[in-house]
Amino acid sequence: MQLSKISTRAPKSFDKEKTKLQTAILVDEISELQNILYAQGKYKVLIILQGMDASGKDGAIKSVFRGINPLGCSVKAFKAPNTEEQGYDFLWRIHKNVPEKGMIKIFNRSQYEDILVPTVHKLLPAETIEKRYKHINQFEEFLIDNDTVILKYFLHISKEEQTLRLQERLDDYTKFWKHNDQDAKEAKQWNVYMKTYERIFKNCAKAAPWQIIPADQNWYRDFLIAKSIVESLKKLKLSYNKK
Amino acid sequence: MQLSKISTRAPKSFDKEKTKLQTAILVDEISELQNILYAQGKYKVLIILQGMDASGKDGAIKSVFRGINPLGCSVKAFKAPNTEEQGYDFLWRIHKNVPEKGMIKIFNRSQYEDILVPTVHKLLPAETIEKRYKHINQFEEFLIDNDTVILKYFLHISKEEQTLRLQERLDDYTKFWKHNDQDAKEAKQWNVYMKTYERIFKNCAKAAPWQIIPADQNWYRDFLIAKSIVESLKKLKLSYNKK
Repeated sequence: MQLSKISTRAPKSFDKEKTKLQTAILVDEISELQNILYAQGKYKVLIILQGMDASGKDGAIKSVFRGINPLGCSVKAFKAPNTEEQGYDFLWRIHKNVPEKGMIKIFNRSQYEDILVPTVHKLLPAETIEKRYKHINQFEEFLIDNDTVILKYFLHISKEEQTLRLQERLDDYTKFWKHNDQDAKEAKQWNVYMKTYERIFKNCAKAAPWQIIPADQNWYRDFLIAKSIVESLKKLKLSYNKK
Repeated sequence: MQLSKISTRAPKSFDKEKTKLQTAILVDEISELQNILYAQGKYKVLIILQGMDASGKDGAIKSVFRGINPLGCSVKAFKAPNTEEQGYDFLWRIHKNVPEKGMIKIFNRSQYEDILVPTVHKLLPAETIEKRYKHINQFEEFLIDNDTVILKYFLHISKEEQTLRLQERLDDYTKFWKHNDQDAKEAKQWNVYMKTYERIFKNCAKAAPWQIIPADQNWYRDFLIAKSIVESLKKLKLSYNKK
């Protein structure tokens, strides 16, 4: 699979306003399904969001999970490991943060950063990184064996769109807080990131497949994610426990 | 392997007083090696103690780790999962408690209780328990790939010795605090426990082998554990980081 051959935009047949209405309905459905998920207390839902800087991870969370009961849903953002986390294996902080029964947990970045960053910046021997693919697969299989549903989304934007968005952060004072000097440097590694992502999608799909979300248009991105979550939750055939 | 065919006592050639002197030397060596382990901050040492009630897990920890710097060594006792822990997979609380770089962590009981208890008391479908063997193996391999040394000890006592010790807890007011009505019930399941342990030793030895410690005599038990720990730490070729 080549990311460069996958469109980052909605097919022309999609109407923006109609799609937004559909998304609003899906967002309500997520809230309803989450109520039952929580009441039943059986399944755990882990949503993994990955994507380049400015690909819209924060925006997607804001749009798709607005209105959800925060009692049953929370977000964990993984930044560079802190000094405590560095004392342990890379899955230690991940495992500590998995959802408990009845909960939805959203990972804003995830264990996949522990493959991406050391690969792109050559921080670890190839052999060590190779093992991480295997260990992530085994870890995800383990979670799935323990009633976890894992949904993995890659927010796929074009390099041009990223450039625009990063510039916007400099120009718009309501977005400047998101600006980070490091982002421009990372953006230069675009091709290496894409290649590494392609490898991840190939090697880490066995336990739970990746979904590539064209993400240049926020409305289309939100629609696809919301739709996928509703479909996945419906498959669980959730139900209130009977008296 | 049949546990009933393995002696729970020291071979006759072992002299109690001489062995105790040797143990004292080994215990000092552990302290010295731990200082370097801590200073080097590279390896993680995980010591797993399993055994029937009254097999001497607490006693072994007290004897073998007396004198050790508590800054670099701590004990985690795993009891029946509490309500929070029950919300997660069985390895969640285990992973949370693994040693960090430079540390020795002693598990008083461990992930193996999550095979033993559901097997003996038929609390889970056989298929679910079967998967736990696999997941424990993969988890241990993962820890080992991340610079962890895992040392697994089974304290092997005879049924007769256990009966004596449990009675002692009733008779001796300094030991009564350890008495638990449940223990007598568990002791009745002796044969099922032994069979399950035999299976564990067979199926969960790939990543890190089990060591069966004859444990009817405390002095011999302490000697064997201390000796094994010293040997394992020496194999690491620990050294202070050079300037």
